[in-house]
Amino acid sequence: MRYIENNLWKVYTHKMIHIIDYTSDTVEETEVTTIKECIPFKNRQSVTWINIENLEDVDIIDQIGNLFNIHPLIVEDIKLTGQRPKMEEFDTYNYFVLRMFSYQNKKIDTEQVSIIMGESYIITFQEKPGDVFDPIRKRIRAKKYRINTLSSDFLAYSLIDIIIDNYYVILESFGEQVEHLEDILLVNPTKESLHEIHSLKRKVLHLRRSVWPLRELITNFERSESELIETSTHQYIRDIYDHVIQIIDTVETYRDSLSGMLDIYLSSVNNRMNEIMKVLTIISTIFIPLTFITGLYGMNFKYMPELSLKWGYPAVISIMIITVTGLIIYFKRKKWL
Amino acid sequence: MRYIENNLWKVYTHKMIHIIDYTSDTVEETEVTTIKECIPFKNRQSVTWINIENLEDVDIIDQIGNLFNIHPLIVEDIKLTGQRPKMEEFDTYNYFVLRMFSYQNKKIDTEQVSIIMGESYIITFQEKPGDVFDPIRKRIRAKKYRINTLSSDFLAYSLIDIIIDNYYVILESFGEQVEHLEDILLVNPTKESLHEIHSLKRKVLHLRRSVWPLRELITNFERSESELIETSTHQYIRDIYDHVIQIIDTVETYRDSLSGMLDIYLSSVNNRMNEIMKVLTIISTIFIPLTFITGLYGMNFKYMPELSLKWGYPAVISIMIITVTGLIIYFKRKKWL
Amino acid sequence: MRYIENNLWKVYTHKMIHIIDYTSDTVEETEVTTIKECIPFKNRQSVTWINIENLEDVDIIDQIGNLFNIHPLIVEDIKLTGQRPKMEEFDTYNYFVLRMFSYQNKKIDTEQVSIIMGESYIITFQEKPGDVFDPIRKRIRAKKYRINTLSSDFLAYSLIDIIIDNYYVILESFGEQVEHLEDILLVNPTKESLHEIHSLKRKVLHLRRSVWPLRELITNFERSESELIETSTHQYIRDIYDHVIQIIDTVETYRDSLSGMLDIYLSSVNNRMNEIMKVLTIISTIFIPLTFITGLYGMNFKYMPELSLKWGYPAVISIMIITVTGLIIYFKRKKWL
Amino acid sequence: MRYIENNLWKVYTHKMIHIIDYTSDTVEETEVTTIKECIPFKNRQSVTWINIENLEDVDIIDQIGNLFNIHPLIVEDIKLTGQRPKMEEFDTYNYFVLRMFSYQNKKIDTEQVSIIMGESYIITFQEKPGDVFDPIRKRIRAKKYRINTLSSDFLAYSLIDIIIDNYYVILESFGEQVEHLEDILLVNPTKESLHEIHSLKRKVLHLRRSVWPLRELITNFERSESELIETSTHQYIRDIYDHVIQIIDTVETYRDSLSGMLDIYLSSVNNRMNEIMKVLTIISTIFIPLTFITGLYGMNFKYMPELSLKWGYPAVISIMIITVTGLIIYFKRKKWL
Amino acid sequence: MRYIENNLWKVYTHKMIHIIDYTSDTVEETEVTTIKECIPFKNRQSVTWINIENLEDVDIIDQIGNLFNIHPLIVEDIKLTGQRPKMEEFDTYNYFVLRMFSYQNKKIDTEQVSIIMGESYIITFQEKPGDVFDPIRKRIRAKKYRINTLSSDFLAYSLIDIIIDNYYVILESFGEQVEHLEDILLVNPTKESLHEIHSLKRKVLHLRRSVWPLRELITNFERSESELIETSTHQYIRDIYDHVIQIIDTVETYRDSLSGMLDIYLSSVNNRMNEIMKVLTIISTIFIPLTFITGLYGMNFKYMPELSLKWGYPAVISIMIITVTGLIIYFKRKKWL
Repeated sequence: MRYIENNLWKVYTHKMIHIIDYTSDTVEETEVTTIKECIPFKNRQSVTWINIENLEDVDIIDQIGNLFNIHPLIVEDIKLTGQRPKMEEFDTYNYFVLRMFSYQNKKIDTEQVSIIMGESYIITFQEKPGDVFDPIRKRIRAKKYRINTLSSDFLAYSLIDIIIDNYYVILESFGEQVEHLEDILLVNPTKESLHEIHSLKRKVLHLRRSVWPLRELITNFERSESELIETSTHQYIRDIYDHVIQIIDTVETYRDSLSGMLDIYLSSVNNRMNEIMKVLTIISTIFIPLTFITGLYGMNFKYMPELSLKWGYPAVISIMIITVTGLIIYFKRKKWL
Repeated sequence: MRYIENNLWKVYTHKMIHIIDYTSDTVEETEVTTIKECIPFKNRQSVTWINIENLEDVDIIDQIGNLFNIHPLIVEDIKLTGQRPKMEEFDTYNYFVLRMFSYQNKKIDTEQVSIIMGESYIITFQEKPGDVFDPIRKRIRAKKYRINTLSSDFLAYSLIDIIIDNYYVILESFGEQVEHLEDILLVNPTKESLHEIHSLKRKVLHLRRSVWPLRELITNFERSESELIETSTHQYIRDIYDHVIQIIDTVETYRDSLSGMLDIYLSSVNNRMNEIMKVLTIISTIFIPLTFITGLYGMNFKYMPELSLKWGYPAVISIMIITVTGLIIYFKRKKWL
Repeated sequence: MRYIENNLWKVYTHKMIHIIDYTSDTVEETEVTTIKECIPFKNRQSVTWINIENLEDVDIIDQIGNLFNIHPLIVEDIKLTGQRPKMEEFDTYNYFVLRMFSYQNKKIDTEQVSIIMGESYIITFQEKPGDVFDPIRKRIRAKKYRINTLSSDFLAYSLIDIIIDNYYVILESFGEQVEHLEDILLVNPTKESLHEIHSLKRKVLHLRRSVWPLRELITNFERSESELIETSTHQYIRDIYDHVIQIIDTVETYRDSLSGMLDIYLSSVNNRMNEIMKVLTIISTIFIPLTFITGLYGMNFKYMPELSLKWGYPAVISIMIITVTGLIIYFKRKKWL
Repeated sequence: MRYIENNLWKVYTHKMIHIIDYTSDTVEETEVTTIKECIPFKNRQSVTWINIENLEDVDIIDQIGNLFNIHPLIVEDIKLTGQRPKMEEFDTYNYFVLRMFSYQNKKIDTEQVSIIMGESYIITFQEKPGDVFDPIRKRIRAKKYRINTLSSDFLAYSLIDIIIDNYYVILESFGEQVEHLEDILLVNPTKESLHEIHSLKRKVLHLRRSVWPLRELITNFERSESELIETSTHQYIRDIYDHVIQIIDTVETYRDSLSGMLDIYLSSVNNRMNEIMKVLTIISTIFIPLTFITGLYGMNFKYMPELSLKWGYPAVISIMIITVTGLIIYFKRKKWL
Repeated sequence: MRYIENNLWKVYTHKMIHIIDYTSDTVEETEVTTIKECIPFKNRQSVTWINIENLEDVDIIDQIGNLFNIHPLIVEDIKLTGQRPKMEEFDTYNYFVLRMFSYQNKKIDTEQVSIIMGESYIITFQEKPGDVFDPIRKRIRAKKYRINTLSSDFLAYSLIDIIIDNYYVILESFGEQVEHLEDILLVNPTKESLHEIHSLKRKVLHLRRSVWPLRELITNFERSESELIETSTHQYIRDIYDHVIQIIDTVETYRDSLSGMLDIYLSSVNNRMNEIMKVLTIISTIFIPLTFITGLYGMNFKYMPELSLKWGYPAVISIMIITVTGLIIYFKRKKWL
């Protein structure tokens, strides 16, 4: 029913379910391997955060779907990567899917993160193991931050916030590359610059496609009338909204810059080529009349009085020097040189 | 009253009406040739799916129109291909028209599919015989899937879903061509690449024209307050909506890529031509001063002291070599070579 | 108060008022020359269609305005051509103004058509005599079509429908020209192609300006809550709406194609010119070194040992042949030839 | 508080307040120099139109502001030119500010017109003395037109209508220039054409900036629920709306035309330059091989058998003629000539 | 939680809290260094304006946050520069953040200004010490302006108004640079012009990013139903709105101009280069045939009758002069010279 990006189920080898259960006073942490072990946490009053770090074991996702009464289409969305960021509301839970970016060796690496937010639980699904959520775990363990006193919606907010904060790292890296390219363009634009501009443009467009839907996601989150979201959380969501707008702004700026750089590149290359052609053509233009003069006195007519004159040769040489000087002055005056 | 694409009724030779009638327990399948034989199915409680696989026999369409009380304008829409995808709601039925794509030998083949969705029946009209709907028939026959327990709106959903899923196949083929073209452009851009870019662009625009109206169609379907659509189906329609947005996204990406490729092509061709011109001009530029020197000593003046010198000839040759070397060094320093 | 396109009242020599008055059973047809003769038809229950085929006689329009209580601004709109298509609703009548296109000898000819739709009458004003509405007259006379049983709003719909159907003829002609131009561009793009592309583009833009406002006109017609429009007519209006969207789609497609063609034209011309320049430059490049060699042995130094050698001349000829062959091989390897 | 365009109060030397007070029967006209003299007209039932023809005397504007209870910010808007066209509604009056254009010697001259519309009075402020409103004065004096029987809102409508009608004059002049430029471009595009295109483009953009806000102004005027505007006037305002849309349409068309002309210009110039270069290069290409041949037989080898042959010289001449003919035929066949 | 622009807390060395407390009769002014000293002003009926001129001392901001019950996220927004202009409404206060521009030595300098508007107090936070708000202080001290009789919302309006008025200064400077660049482009476009166009374009885009969000900010301010804003203030806010629209208009105009200038630049450079190439090629074209003729009579054939003729040499010279004259006439007629 859905488009599978590479038509292949990705296969991982570890399976790990990480559970944190906390109230304002207590924090309980376990790692389990079967869904059964999650059941005791299900109806607790405390906030339970279940984190699944790979999507290898389809059974586990299905079992969680059954246990928490998740709609079959949502279960499918979790399993299949390549989703567009979105939020879907249901009576007893909300579903978020986002795209997480990491940037290493000039290559964008991207991963799908699904978040199920129930009244007293959060379930997160990551495509690959990773430590992005660690700061939140640390804050929970410390028991002294706001997060422990608040319900699951604040945890959901914190998770989304940390994912979006991650975008700034990539933006910064893009920003550096854009600046670097601009410097190069001013000094010595090469064919490689063109390809780099295009490759960076493609990366920016790729990021852009993930960022724009975030705006709608956060708007839905903010305007949601779901009972699962407390009013005090709305201000925090508005805060993420501002970040998303700022990210979009920056992405659009990079896009504009890259288009402008393309123009600069093309006109630089053109200019340089024109300069070369101009100099070369000027050289030819200076020598062609001279060659004509030499040709003139290379003719074999019997009666060419100049040829017998003593000062004929030096005179011709002088004429040539005068011609060259005249042409050079003319070209300089016309600002062609 | 309507625009007929080629001003000609298309003529087919087979006529075939295929009927599946099913409940959660029973599945009845027949092939009939006259509309009369459809009458017994009309008022049954079970879901009846009537599939007509060519639009040759205009009478059959008219008769179905009469039998099921279809508005004459809708009957006309069914008959005449070239419709824009849309959904129209009536009291006792809804009408959907979509475009189905198949892609063979780099040629897009397109076909109009009309779906009439009544309370206990679905009538589908295909322009050409085809087996696109077979997976749904198989599921119905298997009697073990959701589809058998649900009413006609779920069948309509399934049909639209399978048509839209088909778009991914074409997108994938386009994706491959886009990548292939990009590879070629980096290595050896030819005149043919330009025509291929334009031809692919045209195909993408063609697809785009069919995809954009789908968005409105699905939105109408989802927001419809028609009693014919059960609430549980809405989540499924939302799911198609996500697919349509994803398809639109991809189509727009391809469009952008193709525009970018045009730029790369033009600047590559330009670069290559400039390179050639540069090398050729440099060759001329080196030989023109030399030719001038030869001309100089080809002059027939009686009094040219250099001509009688023993080392005159080797000296001129040396001067020439020095000139050439100097020019080459100069050009290399200026990075013109 | 209004802008008169050529600041001149157009003058025609015939005046003709054609009246058809019909019910489902009866059809009465007359041609009159004065407005007085229209009065008896005014309050009849039957549908009366008054057609005025030129706008020469301003008095007639004024008199009709008075007789049917038309707002003075509307009377002015009827008289002055160059209106933007629009619909205006009043209590006792609706006013439509459209643009009719005819296409002869590659020239677009355009004409303003005004339609006043009262409860039991329709008044149409055409700028020039013409037979566009004849099919509707024939249908009315035949007394066997839907149109006779329905009220004036259906007649108004039919008139608008036939005007819009007329656009397809022009679109088809444009389509042919676009295809023809594309063929020419691939084979032999000339300066004339450029002007043809621009002229066709201008025509398409001209049509576009008349087509876009139609969308609003039809939307207003469909959504109108005027009591003059019966509910059964709405489905028909929706049908025109689909046509208008289709026409707009096609116009936009042509626009895109023409822009694309401009790109192809420019790069073709550029390519061709570059090809020529390349070949010419290669010829020069081959001969310039040869000419240098001939210059070398044309020098008049007394001591040039090669000149006295028996095989000097053939050797030089051989060197020249080798040089040429080498250059040609080099150019071929570099794919410059 | 506001941006003053040239940071200078413009200084005029005449001050003149022109008052027309009229009912359907009576017309009273006076010219006064102080505001005091306006007081008697203030509470009359008749419509009073006070026209102030320069903004020199800031005191007068302030006094009028006090007398008619105008909001201080509006008084400031009246004084400071460079306002964007807009309408502002207050309880007892509405404020309109528009831009009036005149076009002389290819220079656009622009002026700000403010209109205050009270229940029984209209106050107009013009930047410079002018006779644009004369036709309305004449109509009022004639006592036989609609205008005298209607209240102040109709006068306001008439004033705005006449200002907007004025735009057509400029559009016509632009239209002529656009056509003229197009003719020139087809025949002989020069550097001046480029600057004229850009200068006209700038003028069109300048007009555009004044025209677009008019749309909002008129929409606000039409939709206004102010008690100062009678229902019968709304139809007239809708009429201006149509004009504004038409003006916007025309302006956009000119903009598109000018962009298209830029393309034509650039490709014409390019074409022409390419043509020249082609012809020149062909000439060189023909003579370079010939020069090579002459060089060949200008060599001083002792043993060159051809040199002693009687028919050597005519043979070489023949070879040259054949070469030239062959090259010309080749170039013609390739359509390079 | 938020993106810190340079990842560094900016460090300033002075800390200064400036307080003005005023009613229509009294004005009290103090400078304090601790928040404690602000407490007595907190619940006064008079309007208290607390201005903090650097963001160095994070503690002060936190303490103010606590004292006035500001939401922690807002406190963070105040501390971290790089915010997008916005307004946020709370029950007891509104929060505004804007960007202030100063322009010195062709460099844009930008600073974040935060305004907290409570019922009887305003708190402003500036990034750097500055005297932008001095005119307002003077007006307050003078005790004779409107501002003293009105509540805190009018003070907030005045502050925002003065910040936005500041934009006009930068716009004016941009306007001068744009005009200057245009003049240069017409006379002598250089490579530097290109970089200046791009640099100015970048500055305009930078300003634009700060200006567009203002529109939303002011709209929110105007439409706010907050009890903190009195109805009489709305007219003033509408006035700022007009300014913002005008600023946006101007910015967009500059953007368009700069794009147009890029076109002019490119075509100027191209034209100039083409002119040079043309002249140079014409020179070559004239001399190449001449050189051929000299080559002809430089051949060493024994039997060349012309060589022995007395008038051979002058004849050849004459032929050459005729050839040159003919070519020059031809080129002039073709308008190539």
